[in-house]
Amino acid sequence: MRTDLTEKFGIEYPIFGFTPSEHVAAAISRAGGLGVLGCVRFNEPEELDGVLEWMHENTDGKPFGVDIVMPAKIPTEGSKVDLDAMIPPEHRAFVERTLDDLGVPPLPDGDRVNTGVLGWLHSVARSHVDVAMEHTRKYGQIKLIANALGSPPEDVIQISHDNGVAVAALAGAREHAMHHVDAGVDIVIAQGHEGGGHTGEVTSMILWPELVDAVGDRAPVLAAGGVGSGRQIAAALALGAQGVWMGTYWLTAAEYQLGASAEGGPTVIQQALLKATSRDTVRRRIYSGKPARLLKTAWTDAWDAENAPEPLPMPLQNLLVGDAHARISQAHDPSVVAMPAGQIVGRLNAITPVAELIADLVSEYEQAVARLSKTAE
Amino acid sequence: MRTDLTEKFGIEYPIFGFTPSEHVAAAISRAGGLGVLGCVRFNEPEELDGVLEWMHENTDGKPFGVDIVMPAKIPTEGSKVDLDAMIPPEHRAFVERTLDDLGVPPLPDGDRVNTGVLGWLHSVARSHVDVAMEHTRKYGQIKLIANALGSPPEDVIQISHDNGVAVAALAGAREHAMHHVDAGVDIVIAQGHEGGGHTGEVTSMILWPELVDAVGDRAPVLAAGGVGSGRQIAAALALGAQGVWMGTYWLTAAEYQLGASAEGGPTVIQQALLKATSRDTVRRRIYSGKPARLLKTAWTDAWDAENAPEPLPMPLQNLLVGDAHARISQAHDPSVVAMPAGQIVGRLNAITPVAELIADLVSEYEQAVARLSKTAE
Repeated sequence: MRTDLTEKFGIEYPIFGFTPSEHVAAAISRAGGLGVLGCVRFNEPEELDGVLEWMHENTDGKPFGVDIVMPAKIPTEGSKVDLDAMIPPEHRAFVERTLDDLGVPPLPDGDRVNTGVLGWLHSVARSHVDVAMEHTRKYGQIKLIANALGSPPEDVIQISHDNGVAVAALAGAREHAMHHVDAGVDIVIAQGHEGGGHTGEVTSMILWPELVDAVGDRAPVLAAGGVGSGRQIAAALALGAQGVWMGTYWLTAAEYQLGASAEGGPTVIQQALLKATSRDTVRRRIYSGKPARLLKTAWTDAWDAENAPEPLPMPLQNLLVGDAHARISQAHDPSVVAMPAGQIVGRLNAITPVAELIADLVSEYEQAVARLSKTAE
Repeated sequence: MRTDLTEKFGIEYPIFGFTPSEHVAAAISRAGGLGVLGCVRFNEPEELDGVLEWMHENTDGKPFGVDIVMPAKIPTEGSKVDLDAMIPPEHRAFVERTLDDLGVPPLPDGDRVNTGVLGWLHSVARSHVDVAMEHTRKYGQIKLIANALGSPPEDVIQISHDNGVAVAALAGAREHAMHHVDAGVDIVIAQGHEGGGHTGEVTSMILWPELVDAVGDRAPVLAAGGVGSGRQIAAALALGAQGVWMGTYWLTAAEYQLGASAEGGPTVIQQALLKATSRDTVRRRIYSGKPARLLKTAWTDAWDAENAPEPLPMPLQNLLVGDAHARISQAHDPSVVAMPAGQIVGRLNAITPVAELIADLVSEYEQAVARLSKTAE
């Protein structure tokens, strides 16, 4: 599984693993891929700093990356208080009523709500960039900074390049990809309709080769959305991608422990994921204000009901549901999780250590290439 | 490009080309694929009989197939007159008003409306099967009968097998595929969300390997939805398919001449297809009553408008819009066509003879396999 990107990053496999869990990210890098830590859940720079320090201590000097949400266009910037005032009371009432109906308990008194909400805002994202750059100057391990929503700001690209950090950005359409390379982005992540989180309408089978052709030799393309097996990696490389970007695949890793969990068993979120089929996702604006693919649960069903309000624009919708997400993630009901997930969730049927997950990808990829080569003999 | 299916059918490439045009279907078979003639547009058995005779005379003895629409469940069976009476007058008024607004002229007096509508009904589909079987007993060239909507009826499978004709059926989800193999279907066509015509929610990248694994060695899988290049064929085979089923790809073939056309140039439909990008399709119930992916045009936009009625269930919706489709296909405005098309339409940028279209697929497939093999060295 050797491409220009294994060369560029000094990694064994062109497998880029996005995950909010530092335990999973570190394990991916240790196993020969490139773990990319999602930073949106960190409200305070000190928190991220501590986690990056832990990553350094647990990655044997291998490279890793960070994913920082830097929306290209935020309709409204402002303090949390200003933004809160823009949320209609009927929307708040609907969320409260829905949580009650679904039996989601309130947070224990004094519990800090770490909703990741502020991570959407420029000011917070910028402090994440600063922390990451400091770390890379110290240890030189952070080799990639990725952005899910538009091209990163010009000075972020500049400071990243100054520190030897490559910049990647997600694209759901040709125009996004062209904008990225024009802005100086080094790697385009082509994320198809079937992916978890924010996606467009065009599916991976169509989008990957379209973006490969569109950006040409101006940037390598990582294939995202729908990758959860070695066969799909082979397909991605056959379609012209230089590697894959996987997110949902790691959610049932043994190392993934975010959210509530029963003693010793899989977490509540993992219980929900293990049960889901490829048809159990929906693409809705209810998570962030922009269309994102989520696990279909009683929570998403509630927003599909006749009486549900229209989701608010970004970043208001995420502010609106921030507390709800925190309450849901502390609850113990797998039928009410609020979780981005791609259609590949149908393949997640066991809790498996990351090292094994990667070994599975590699051996299935090798079989697929061998089988395909035979068809051409 | 050799698989079990090239062996089974005695064809050069496992490229199954679905098309309503006998000229295109014949050219596909002549060029080493398997042309599959869509029969829904033929109201009278005699018409189909004549066209199959022409196919025989123009395929150098090579095998070909037929696609006959046999809906598994028709909510309502009955004569056209009975069914017509079930269509609400407001729906008819909306269609008339919309055609007027869009400037679609009425059909010339005495023009026969060949809408394909009756092809949805069991009785008509059955007469198509009879004609096809008669032909295969005479010339032995019809090697495949395919059905787009559910498993074919038991006796159709039986009579096909008795005549040495393999039976294929489209599937958009695991349950469909299992139902097909249980019913005795020989080949499962896994059609992803991005395909033209009737599709489910699950995309090709997810669906193809899922159905390959689900049916195992009970049936080979053809990959459909999103195939319009040799790289995508390589991806399909890497994902475990034994061949590909392509529809949209042939719509800009030089041999495709259905619908109105300007003197000597591309047809009106082709003009519309050449302009479209991968984002210019929508999946709606307005064509048949079941979700089908269509080219986005002023006609689909009208049905998305605030004042548009909900589409009717199958087969009423197709009866409702049958005359409209006939009027639109005789008109000369590429912005108002009513045409199933997959997202691969973004790649259709020239009018090209079928032989060249197939040669392109083969050479790009070979390059993709060679490039992929290198990544595994």
